[in-house]
Amino acid sequence: MSHGATERDVGFLADLDLDGEVSRGESDRGTHAGGYATAPDEEVPPDAVVFPESTADVSTVLAAADERGVPVTPYAAGTSLESHVTPIDGGISLDLTRMDSVLEVRPDDLTVDVEPGVIGTDLNERVARHGLTFPPLPSSGAISTIGGMIATDASGMGTVKYGEVGDWVRKLEVVMADGTVVETGTRAAKTSSGYNLTALLVGSEGTLGVVTRATLGLAGIPQQIRGGRAVFPTLDDATAAVRDAVTSGVDVAKIELMDADSAALVNNYSGTELPERPMAFVEFHADHGVEEEIAFCEAVFAAHDVESFEVGEGDEMDELWTARKDITYAADEWLPGASMGHPGDVTVPISNYPAMIRDVKEVADEYDLFIPAFGHAGDGNLHYFAVYDHEDPDAVDRAERAYAELVDRALELDGTVTGEHGIGVGKQQYLRREHGAAVDVMRSIKDALDPNGTLNPGKVLPEE
Amino acid sequence: MSHGATERDVGFLADLDLDGEVSRGESDRGTHAGGYATAPDEEVPPDAVVFPESTADVSTVLAAADERGVPVTPYAAGTSLESHVTPIDGGISLDLTRMDSVLEVRPDDLTVDVEPGVIGTDLNERVARHGLTFPPLPSSGAISTIGGMIATDASGMGTVKYGEVGDWVRKLEVVMADGTVVETGTRAAKTSSGYNLTALLVGSEGTLGVVTRATLGLAGIPQQIRGGRAVFPTLDDATAAVRDAVTSGVDVAKIELMDADSAALVNNYSGTELPERPMAFVEFHADHGVEEEIAFCEAVFAAHDVESFEVGEGDEMDELWTARKDITYAADEWLPGASMGHPGDVTVPISNYPAMIRDVKEVADEYDLFIPAFGHAGDGNLHYFAVYDHEDPDAVDRAERAYAELVDRALELDGTVTGEHGIGVGKQQYLRREHGAAVDVMRSIKDALDPNGTLNPGKVLPEE
Repeated sequence: MSHGATERDVGFLADLDLDGEVSRGESDRGTHAGGYATAPDEEVPPDAVVFPESTADVSTVLAAADERGVPVTPYAAGTSLESHVTPIDGGISLDLTRMDSVLEVRPDDLTVDVEPGVIGTDLNERVARHGLTFPPLPSSGAISTIGGMIATDASGMGTVKYGEVGDWVRKLEVVMADGTVVETGTRAAKTSSGYNLTALLVGSEGTLGVVTRATLGLAGIPQQIRGGRAVFPTLDDATAAVRDAVTSGVDVAKIELMDADSAALVNNYSGTELPERPMAFVEFHADHGVEEEIAFCEAVFAAHDVESFEVGEGDEMDELWTARKDITYAADEWLPGASMGHPGDVTVPISNYPAMIRDVKEVADEYDLFIPAFGHAGDGNLHYFAVYDHEDPDAVDRAERAYAELVDRALELDGTVTGEHGIGVGKQQYLRREHGAAVDVMRSIKDALDPNGTLNPGKVLPEE
Repeated sequence: MSHGATERDVGFLADLDLDGEVSRGESDRGTHAGGYATAPDEEVPPDAVVFPESTADVSTVLAAADERGVPVTPYAAGTSLESHVTPIDGGISLDLTRMDSVLEVRPDDLTVDVEPGVIGTDLNERVARHGLTFPPLPSSGAISTIGGMIATDASGMGTVKYGEVGDWVRKLEVVMADGTVVETGTRAAKTSSGYNLTALLVGSEGTLGVVTRATLGLAGIPQQIRGGRAVFPTLDDATAAVRDAVTSGVDVAKIELMDADSAALVNNYSGTELPERPMAFVEFHADHGVEEEIAFCEAVFAAHDVESFEVGEGDEMDELWTARKDITYAADEWLPGASMGHPGDVTVPISNYPAMIRDVKEVADEYDLFIPAFGHAGDGNLHYFAVYDHEDPDAVDRAERAYAELVDRALELDGTVTGEHGIGVGKQQYLRREHGAAVDVMRSIKDALDPNGTLNPGKVLPEE
């Protein structure tokens, strides 16, 4: 990557009247130079880190930076997988982690107001006392913030039943590039009033505005939660079974796939003796009648020669799910550093999911790589990473070509390059291929809402 | 209203190479002068009506019109309730009803591709042979088009369970103001790739682009459908019961309210002898266990002193629902023309629904008007219309003030001015009050995507 920060004059920050803090210390600049998956040689330290404590702070900083053409890159937990938080043109890293209050829970409305720095599981803990939950939480929910989830329109295992984070955002308070504070949307459950700015801002990765408050929908915690693991003889059986479960309307809350290579990784990591076969992990949520739903699912799986189908609740369910939850750690154990980089996140129409998974295996063979695949099968979303020696230039080259090839194949299968991680820096090269002339529409909107280009420059939209 | 069309030079249309037809006939111009609820004195005939037959036609017309600054107002079934289809600055009415094909049904993907002129129930008939349905269809589905539903982000009785039309739109083909054809979104079930242009265009009422094709999600037709009617002693009991059913997680597919005045209207219309009491209409969809859900709902209603709770299936259910379905016709019977105009469509957070309904009755008393209220209670959405003599200037004045007052109260209750009918012409005056500075963001987007202002001018955004 050829980005290099010019040193920006951020001295004006000292003169702003802020509740929060401004830091130009080496350490703060270092910790804000990139995200979770940013390679060390792609890190760029900001010239300053600002820790706003209020909407007014964010507005003050944005207005002043915009006047001076100084870039502002929002930052929170830094768990982005596509370097969204790297201040690639220098300037200010706007660290929103001090704005982490759950402001108001409204059980009589199934809504909650939060600041952007709230950690996902903290929100869930807070609303659980009312019997409520925020259903679309991503797997990273224990470490990632609501603001980041909104910025990428994140989603997770529960998305097959509950939708994406964006589907649960009713209202946003947003600071625009010039510091203007606007509110979008409504607390009401639906609206047809004006342009849907809420949905436009969700997933815009901090390039159109900075979210300072969000009103989210909530749902009751289901009375019945059951789940478990199914083992299939072949990968084709497993993917076809998942596809048929979804299209025949099995009411699954989660339905995940793991291929045999992933199972091997996990056995190596945790010393388990899982069959090294493709597996589907399922979870069912209901207020009653969960057994009928499980039986329905089992019948669909049986038509694809399922070898075992084990379901339980509580600890038993958690144990059946362990392998799925260990998979990302397991890769690191197999070969340290192997799971870093930009994990694949392509998503295809469910009818093409079996073909997409076959393609992963084909491409792995073609490029002589070990590429375990797993992910949110029910949405047609899959994750994969080539496990290879990052010090071996030939392996690096093969891996890069394999990744590009997999994106190609996903697009040929009418898919999208990212189901939940976002574009950031890492996927920009594919934006035009996926969206064609629609990228020009995106660019027009960016130019209209951020004419000076100070909001998270270099993200989402490719330089062309 | 002070709009008057200047006569536009639309002679260039004759020179365009179109598959479809151009009409400058009196009759076509007359039928395209307004929508279902446009008052005769607010109608404005276009200078020409174009009936495109392909995306290329739409693109050709838009490009040519944009070059010349000639307004283009999309039109389809004309069922808009807020005069979206009135060409208030003259120019071209773009009638999309000939683009009415269901292009491809994909049962293995739960998606369908349609042209914008497809009528809602025609779509449902077509996909029913695969056991599928398009769940968010509005009550007008038998006469209104998918394109219109997308333009207003319409919704309906099923929205409490299934969401709005926009929640089911995966992909759009859209012709932009300058004639450029873009595709937004993806056929995959989810994406985080680039700005969510699909959601921005949904509900933009033809002011940002013209939809020429849509990929919609579908769902299986439920195995069990049951429904019926509950009668309550007081309006407060009825509204509180609906609120509690929703917030306690009863899985209702429809939950509608009708006040005692509405019941009186219906009795007058159909000669029935319904108790003139507030009623809730419910429908339950499930693949199994529907009886448990009904029992759960009945228990919630019992806590609010429900007087009767009758539920059935098939014809029996239809009969119980008749009153709800007759309500709009019934108003006309009571006093011809009474149901015309801009029916109220405010939507409030469910916790404020009881207060909003009380406000309707209070305002009716205050302005000495008969204002039956009904609607999609589960979403906090209500419809109402003052039934009065439209020839009586005093009544007209009182009705206008009452309508404005009800919008005020909805906004005070954190609601939105329109849940499903859109802004069009009729609700523009409230846009700034509801959205504040966000209206400027909407305006920036409009100016960026339609710099010459030719797409459906005078709609959504107020002149300020």
